[in-house]
Amino acid sequence: MSEYTITVIKNENPKPKPAADKLKFGKYFTDHMFIQDYSEEKGWHNPRIVPYQPLVLDPAAMIFHYGQTVFEGLKAYRTEDGSIKLFRPDKNMERLNRSNDRLCIPAIDEEFGIKAIKHLVHIDNEWVPHAEGTSLYIRPFIIATEPYLGVNPSSTYQFIVILSPVGAYYESGINPVKIAVENEFVRAVKGGTGEAKTAGNYASSLKAQEIVAQEGYAQVLWLDGVEKKYIEEVGSMNVFFKINGEIITPMLNGSILKGVTRNSVIELLKYWDVPVVERRITIEEIYESYQNGGLEEAFGSGTAAVISPIGELAWEGKKMEINGGRTGEISKRLYDTLTGIQYGSVRDPFGWVVDVK
Amino acid sequence: MSEYTITVIKNENPKPKPAADKLKFGKYFTDHMFIQDYSEEKGWHNPRIVPYQPLVLDPAAMIFHYGQTVFEGLKAYRTEDGSIKLFRPDKNMERLNRSNDRLCIPAIDEEFGIKAIKHLVHIDNEWVPHAEGTSLYIRPFIIATEPYLGVNPSSTYQFIVILSPVGAYYESGINPVKIAVENEFVRAVKGGTGEAKTAGNYASSLKAQEIVAQEGYAQVLWLDGVEKKYIEEVGSMNVFFKINGEIITPMLNGSILKGVTRNSVIELLKYWDVPVVERRITIEEIYESYQNGGLEEAFGSGTAAVISPIGELAWEGKKMEINGGRTGEISKRLYDTLTGIQYGSVRDPFGWVVDVK
Ligand SMILES: Cc1ncc(COP(=O)(O)O)c(C=O)c1O
Ligand SMILES: Cc1ncc(COP(=O)(O)O)c(C=O)c1O
Repeated sequence: MSEYTITVIKNENPKPKPAADKLKFGKYFTDHMFIQDYSEEKGWHNPRIVPYQPLVLDPAAMIFHYGQTVFEGLKAYRTEDGSIKLFRPDKNMERLNRSNDRLCIPAIDEEFGIKAIKHLVHIDNEWVPHAEGTSLYIRPFIIATEPYLGVNPSSTYQFIVILSPVGAYYESGINPVKIAVENEFVRAVKGGTGEAKTAGNYASSLKAQEIVAQEGYAQVLWLDGVEKKYIEEVGSMNVFFKINGEIITPMLNGSILKGVTRNSVIELLKYWDVPVVERRITIEEIYESYQNGGLEEAFGSGTAAVISPIGELAWEGKKMEINGGRTGEISKRLYDTLTGIQYGSVRDPFGWVVDVK
Repeated sequence: MSEYTITVIKNENPKPKPAADKLKFGKYFTDHMFIQDYSEEKGWHNPRIVPYQPLVLDPAAMIFHYGQTVFEGLKAYRTEDGSIKLFRPDKNMERLNRSNDRLCIPAIDEEFGIKAIKHLVHIDNEWVPHAEGTSLYIRPFIIATEPYLGVNPSSTYQFIVILSPVGAYYESGINPVKIAVENEFVRAVKGGTGEAKTAGNYASSLKAQEIVAQEGYAQVLWLDGVEKKYIEEVGSMNVFFKINGEIITPMLNGSILKGVTRNSVIELLKYWDVPVVERRITIEEIYESYQNGGLEEAFGSGTAAVISPIGELAWEGKKMEINGGRTGEISKRLYDTLTGIQYGSVRDPFGWVVDVK
C-alpha cells in the first residue's frame, strides 16, 4: 500500500525560529505541512509537502457545519546525539483509523501516515528544539471538505499534518496540579464519540473547563455520563490512582480515550512488577480511600505532560490533598523513565522509539 | 446596539441560477455571503456582504481541531405577491446565542443578526425560487478562527451567513417516512451539547444514520443517553405522537434541540384547542399504544420538511405501521397551515412572518 510518492515543494521563505525560552504549546508552526486529498474516485491521493499555508475552503465545506473531523497528537524528540525520535507513532495512526471509523471517514494507510510524518519532520528537522524538555508537537488531522449542507458523510476529505515546536511542559521540574471533579457537564457517553479523538468532544468540554479555571483548577476530572459516578479521564489526560500500593486506572469502556501514554504506563508498571489494574472505579471509592489513608498518589497521563501528578482533587466541596500535594514516587519514576526513553537517555526495552531518518 | 453599517461589495460575476426542477437541498449557493469578525479588543466588528468566496484559514485555526462552532438554519419564502418572507428569524437568533453560550462563543447582537440576514437575502433576492414548495435556505454559522492548538475558547471568530436555493422537500405531495429507533449509538446526553446547534452533535450522528440507511430507513429516532428509554428526537427533527386524541412531544430536557417548528406546532395546536402536552415519553409507551390501537399518528417537525409524517417506526425488530402508513389528519393540517403561513396564503395570527424589505 505504501507506494505513494510524496511531492515536495520547499518553502523559499523560512520563518525565524522562536527562542527556546519563548516557546509555548501550539502557538508557533514550522515552515512546511503535509496534505493529502481524498475523493470517492481516487481514494487517498496526491500526498504533498508544501510551505505552511492557509487552507482555502468553501464556506459550505462540511467541516464547518457537521464537524466530521478527527485528529491526533504526538511528538518528535531531539536526543543527546542530535538524532530525532518519534514515540510509538503506530499507536497514533491506529487510533486515527479507529476515530475515522466512528466518524465515517475513510481509513488512511497507517504505514504511509508514519512515513509522511517522518518525511515532514525530516524536512523541518531544524525546528525540533534542543533545550531540555522541549519537543516538536505533531498534529495530524482529517477534515470533511465537500461543500454540501446535508447531514451525510462527506465525499471528499483532506489529511493534513502540521508541526509546532513546544517548550518544556514543566518550567521548573515536574509539578502537581489541582483537578476538580465535574458534576454537571458531561464530556462523553457510552454510544457517543468519547473513544474517538474528534473535535466535538473538546468543544463540549470548554464550558466546564472555563468554570473550574475561575476557581484555580487546571482541568476537570470527568465522570461517566450515565451514572455520574465512575471516573473516566481528565480534560486531555487519562488518570491513574495508587491505592494501598496498587495502581488503578479506569478500564476502557467506549467513552474514554485510549491514550498512548496510558498504555505505555501500564506496560512499564507490568515490566516493573508493580501491581496495576484496569477496572471501573467510582469517585466515592477514591474519597473513601483518601479518608482512610489508602490514597497514596494520583496522576494524569498524556502526550503533552507525559505524567502530571495530581496534588489536589476537589469533589463536591471536599478537597483531597494527595501525597501532601507533592509529586509521588511512582509518578516521578514513570515520568523519568518515559521521558528518558523518549529523549534516548534511558534504554527502550519495548521498541517504542522510532528514528525519523 | 444595531448601529453597525454593513459594507457591501457586489459580485460582478453572478452565477447562472439552477433550474427550479434541478434544485437539491444544500448543493447550490448564491452570489453573496455575509461575514463579521470578532476579536477580544473590537468585539463583533466589520460586518460585510461580499461575493460568495472560499474561507482562508490557518490550518491551526481552532475550528479544525476543537470544533468550537455553532450554526442555525431557516428559510426565506417567495409569496404569491412576489415579496419575500422569513419565518420567526428571532427564534433562530435567540437559539444561536444559547448555542454560543454553551460553546463559550461570544454572543451576537440578535437584532443585528436579523438585519444582516434580511440585507443579504435582499441582495440575492433573485435567488429566492418561485416554484411551489421551493425556498431559500439560510445558514448562519460561527467558527473559531484563532490559530492555536490549546483546548481553550478561541480569541477570534467569524460569523458567516450563506444562502442556498432549495427544491420542494416533497416532490409529489407530503409523504410519510420510515424511521428506526436507535439502540446502540447516542446523539446527546444531559450535561452534554444536545440543546446546542453545534457541529459535534451531527458528527456523532453519522454512524447510526449510515447503518439504518442501509436498511431503508430515512433517519433514526434517538433515545436518551442515560436510560436509553425516553424518546428524544429524530436526526434533524423534533417528534410528535398522537395517542388517543392527544398530541405528545418529549419535553425539553437539555439534550433535545429546541426546534422553532416544534414551538410553532405547539402554538398552533393550542390555538386550535387540540390537546397537546410536553412530557417524558418512553419507547415502550409508544409500542404499547401501538399494540392497543391508541397510536394514531406520528410526525417529525423541522425547518427542512416542516412536517414529516412517520409511516413506519422500527424498534428492536418490531415494525409499527402508523395510520396505515399514510399521512394523518393532524399532520396534514399542520403542514398545510404552517406552509400556508410561510408562503403567505394563510393568515398569520401570530406575527411569525417577517418581511425582508
Ligand atoms: C481526552 C483525552 N484523553 C487522554 C489523552 C491522552 O492520550 P495520549 O496519551 O495518547 O496523548 C488525550 C490527549 O491526547 C486526550 O485528549
Ligand atoms: C437535531 C435537530 N432537531 C430538531 C430540529 C428542528 O429544528 P427547527 O424546527 O428549528 O428546524 C433540527 C433542525 O433544525 C435539528 O437539527
